[in-house]
Amino acid sequence: MFSPVPAPAIVSRSPVTGAELGSVPETPSAEVAAVVGRATAAAAAVRAAHPYERAGWLRAVAAAMEAHASEIVSLADAESGLGVDRLRAELAGAARQWRFYADVAEEGSWLDVTIDHAADARPDLRRVSEADGPVAVFGASNFPLTFGEIGHDTASAMAAGAPVVIKAHPAHPRLAVLLGEVGHEALAAAGAPVGTLGMVHGFDAGLALVRHPEITAVAFTGSERGGMALRAAVLERAVPIPVYAEMGTINPVVVAGSVPATELTDLAQTFVRSLTYGSGQVCTKPGLVLVPRGSDFVDLVGRAVQDARHEGWALTESIAAAYRTGIAELEAAGASVVARSDGPGTGWGLDPAVLTAPIERVRSGSRLLAECFGPVGLLVEYDSIEDVIAVVGELPGALAAGLFAAADDPDVPRLVDRLSRRVGRIAFGVWTSGVATTWAQHHGGPWPATTMPTATSVGAAALRRFVRPVTYQGMPAAAQPIAVRDENPWAVPQRIDGVAVGGSERRS
Amino acid sequence: MFSPVPAPAIVSRSPVTGAELGSVPETPSAEVAAVVGRATAAAAAVRAAHPYERAGWLRAVAAAMEAHASEIVSLADAESGLGVDRLRAELAGAARQWRFYADVAEEGSWLDVTIDHAADARPDLRRVSEADGPVAVFGASNFPLTFGEIGHDTASAMAAGAPVVIKAHPAHPRLAVLLGEVGHEALAAAGAPVGTLGMVHGFDAGLALVRHPEITAVAFTGSERGGMALRAAVLERAVPIPVYAEMGTINPVVVAGSVPATELTDLAQTFVRSLTYGSGQVCTKPGLVLVPRGSDFVDLVGRAVQDARHEGWALTESIAAAYRTGIAELEAAGASVVARSDGPGTGWGLDPAVLTAPIERVRSGSRLLAECFGPVGLLVEYDSIEDVIAVVGELPGALAAGLFAAADDPDVPRLVDRLSRRVGRIAFGVWTSGVATTWAQHHGGPWPATTMPTATSVGAAALRRFVRPVTYQGMPAAAQPIAVRDENPWAVPQRIDGVAVGGSERRS
Repeated sequence: MFSPVPAPAIVSRSPVTGAELGSVPETPSAEVAAVVGRATAAAAAVRAAHPYERAGWLRAVAAAMEAHASEIVSLADAESGLGVDRLRAELAGAARQWRFYADVAEEGSWLDVTIDHAADARPDLRRVSEADGPVAVFGASNFPLTFGEIGHDTASAMAAGAPVVIKAHPAHPRLAVLLGEVGHEALAAAGAPVGTLGMVHGFDAGLALVRHPEITAVAFTGSERGGMALRAAVLERAVPIPVYAEMGTINPVVVAGSVPATELTDLAQTFVRSLTYGSGQVCTKPGLVLVPRGSDFVDLVGRAVQDARHEGWALTESIAAAYRTGIAELEAAGASVVARSDGPGTGWGLDPAVLTAPIERVRSGSRLLAECFGPVGLLVEYDSIEDVIAVVGELPGALAAGLFAAADDPDVPRLVDRLSRRVGRIAFGVWTSGVATTWAQHHGGPWPATTMPTATSVGAAALRRFVRPVTYQGMPAAAQPIAVRDENPWAVPQRIDGVAVGGSERRS
Repeated sequence: MFSPVPAPAIVSRSPVTGAELGSVPETPSAEVAAVVGRATAAAAAVRAAHPYERAGWLRAVAAAMEAHASEIVSLADAESGLGVDRLRAELAGAARQWRFYADVAEEGSWLDVTIDHAADARPDLRRVSEADGPVAVFGASNFPLTFGEIGHDTASAMAAGAPVVIKAHPAHPRLAVLLGEVGHEALAAAGAPVGTLGMVHGFDAGLALVRHPEITAVAFTGSERGGMALRAAVLERAVPIPVYAEMGTINPVVVAGSVPATELTDLAQTFVRSLTYGSGQVCTKPGLVLVPRGSDFVDLVGRAVQDARHEGWALTESIAAAYRTGIAELEAAGASVVARSDGPGTGWGLDPAVLTAPIERVRSGSRLLAECFGPVGLLVEYDSIEDVIAVVGELPGALAAGLFAAADDPDVPRLVDRLSRRVGRIAFGVWTSGVATTWAQHHGGPWPATTMPTATSVGAAALRRFVRPVTYQGMPAAAQPIAVRDENPWAVPQRIDGVAVGGSERRS
C-alpha cells in the first residue's frame, strides 16, 4: 500500500481510525498548464459534437461507474467512512445522474435556440447558447460520488459541451484518482476527445487552475470558507469568470401548530434520521427547526437522539475539530444541549447533538444562524406565527427550507411566500435533506448558499452555468451553428419569431 | 432657469456650448434609504402582480413617453447635443421597447416554469423564477432614452417584476428628473404600487444605493472604468449581489477578400456613417476593421472621412478630453492617422478620425485594442486569412463583431466560429452598430464587454437577470405560486415532466 512518492503529496487517511492509507502526489504547476492545455485543445470538438454523441459519452461514464462499483465503493468507504450501503446507493444515484444529464443534453432546450426571421426593419437574428471552454470543477467530499470529482458539476458541464478539469478533493485523494481514471477511460473508449476530462491534485494546483486564462468558469461544492476563498482567488484574475460555489447553509424548517400531536413522535424520529444522515455532513441538513412552544417536540427529539446509535465519522480531522468547536460556539451564543448521543468513539467519530435556544437569540449575524457541519441541530420554540415570520426575516440565505403543517393551515401560503425569499427550495411535509435530480429541481439559493443565486448545481438547469449566448445576425446558413438552422438538423426546441416550437418530440 | 439649490448639486451643461443650463441637487443618503425603502415595500406587490397587469404598467410608460415627446426630446438635445431628429427616433424606439417588454412579460416563458409530478421515488417539484426585490439601474448617457434612466434595464427589470431605483446619469440630470417623473406618474396612474420606480442623484447616492442591503441586483451601462468601479463597490457588500455591467468595447469587423471591389466605395461610406453615428459614442461602434492589403479600402475610407461634415459633440467634457488623449495614445501605440475631418468647433465638438496600424502591432494588451469612445476607427491591413485568425485570438471580449464577405466564401464558417468565441453577436454584411430589440437579440459578451457574459441587456432574455428560481416540493396547491399550478391560471408556458407545453397561444 505504501510506496515512495515525490513530496509534496496529499495523504489519504481513514476517518474510522485516523490511520494513513497512502498518498497521491500534488500536481506541479507545469502539469496543471498541460492539463488545461489539453482541455483547451479539446474544447471546440466537445462543443461541436452532436448532442446525441455527447450523450453517448455521458452514458459510457455511467456504465463505467457501475462496472467499477465494488472498487469505487470500497475505496470511497475507506477514505470517507460513509459506509458501503450508503455509498452503493450513492453510486447508483451517480450513474442515474449521468444518464439524466445525457437525456438533457439530447433534448436540447439548454441551447436556448431563438430565431427571429427578418421582418420590417428587423434583421434575421439567431441565438444559441454554447459552451465557451474548459470548466474547473471542485467537487465535494460529503457526497464523494454524486457531488465529487465526477458528480453533478462534471456531468452537467460535459452535457453542455465543456471539457472539465477537476481539482481532486484532498479528503479522498485515491478515490479521486480512481474516479478520474474511470471517467477518462470511459470517455476515451466512447470517442470523446483527449482532454475532455482532466484532473489536478493539491491546493496550489487548484489555485493555478482557476487562474489559468483558458478556464471559463469554476464550479465548487463545499464550505462557505472554501467557496469564498476560491471566489476571492478568481477575482484576482485579469479576465473575470463566473464562480458557481454551492456552500454550506443552515436550512430552516418550520413545524406549524397545525401538525397533529399524534404525528410528532414520528416527526422527531425522522428529524433525527435526517440530522444524522451522512453524519450530518449534508448541505441540506435541517439545521434550525422552529417548533410551537408547549408541544412535546423538543422532548421527543431529545429521546430520539438518545435512542439513536450513531456509527458515523467526520470526513476529515478538521471537520471533526470544527464540529466540537461549533457546538461550544452554539452554547456560547445562547443555546443549551437538549440531548447528545455517543458516537463510535474511534478516529474522527462524531457524537450527535440537539440544542435549543430562546427565539429572541435567533437574530441576523448570530452564531446560531451559521452552519455547524455535522450531526447537530437547533430547536427553537415559538409562540405565534408572527414570531416565525420575524425569525424568517433574520435568516441568511439557504439552499432549502422545510415546512410541516396541515395542508389546509391558512398560515401556509404566507409562510411559504416569506421562506421563498430566503431559500432556493421549500419542501412541504418532508425534511430538507433529499435532493432529486429532475427537470424542476433547484439546488441553489441566496448567498451564503451560493455565490450565484440564479444558478443550480442539480437538475436540468445545471447545464446553463456553462454556456454563453451568441447571436448571429444575417448569417449565411453555412456559417450558422447547426442548432439555429431553419432545417433544425439536431431537432432541438427552437423559439421562432417569439413562438416556442418543438421540444416535445424526441428523435429516435 | 437658474434657481438657488442646496449644495452639492449636479450641474447640467450644454455639449454644444459648454454653458451651464441649471442643476439638480444630489440625493442625501437618508433620502436614498427612503427611496430604497419604498421600493422594498413595493416588491411583493410588483412581483405578485399578474403579468398582464404589469404589462399594462409598461405600456403606460410607453404612452407617456410619446405624450411627452417634445419636452423629452428638447431637454435631451439640450443636455446631450445628439440632435432632435436622432432623439425623436430614439424616443420612438424607447416606446417600442417598453411595449416589447410588456409583450414578453405577458408571454411568461421568462418565469421558466417547470413541473415534475411525483413518480417513483421522485417528489412533486415545481420551479418558477421570480423577481427577488429592488434593482439598481445605472443608465447610460449615449442613448439617453433607450439605454438611459427608463431604458432597457428599467423596462426589463420591471417586466420581470422588480421595482427599480435609478441612479440618474450626471451628464443629463434634468432630463433624468423629467424621465423619472414621466415614468413614475405613468406607473402610478396605471395602478403600479408606490415605490415601483424611484430615482437618486449623485455619486455618493449611487454608492449608497448599491450598498443598500435590500438591493438585489445592479444593472449598469457605461464605460469599463465605471462598470468595474461599481463592481468593486458591490464586492465590498456583506451580502454579494450580481452586477450586470455592459461596458465599452472595441468591436472588430473583418472585410474579406471575397467582397467585390465594386462594393468597397459603398462600404467605406457606410463605415464612416456607422463610425460617426452619435459621434461614435456607441458601444457597438466598429472600432477595428481588418481589410485585405492591396484593396482600396483604406483610401476610400480616408476620402469618405474627409468628405463627411460632422456636427457632433461629446456627451461630456471628460469624454471630449479622453477622445483627444485617446487618439494620441493610439498614435503612440503605433497607429498613424489616415484622415481626419473637422468637427463643429464649438463646445465639446469632436473631430472624426480614422487611423491605421501594422497588423503586427495588434496584440493582446496593446492600446490599439482598447476602446476609444468617439468617432475614431482603426483600419488594419492583412495578408492572409491566417493573419486574421491570429488577430482574432488577440482580441479582448466585445459586444459585437462584423463580417463582410461573399456568402459562399469558404473561409466564412471558420472566421465566424473564431469570432464567436470573442463576442456576443456577429453581424454578417452590416456594420455592428444597430441593436434590434427582439426575442433572439443578445447584447452582451465576454469581459470586458460585460461582467456577466451569459446576460443580455437587450431583448427578451434581459428579464432573466432579475429573477431567481425557487423550487416548491410537495407543496399544497394553495401555497404554490400561481404560475406553477396545474390549472395554469396565467396560461404561461410550462415544462411538465420534461416536456414543454404551451407558449404558442396567447390569452386574449
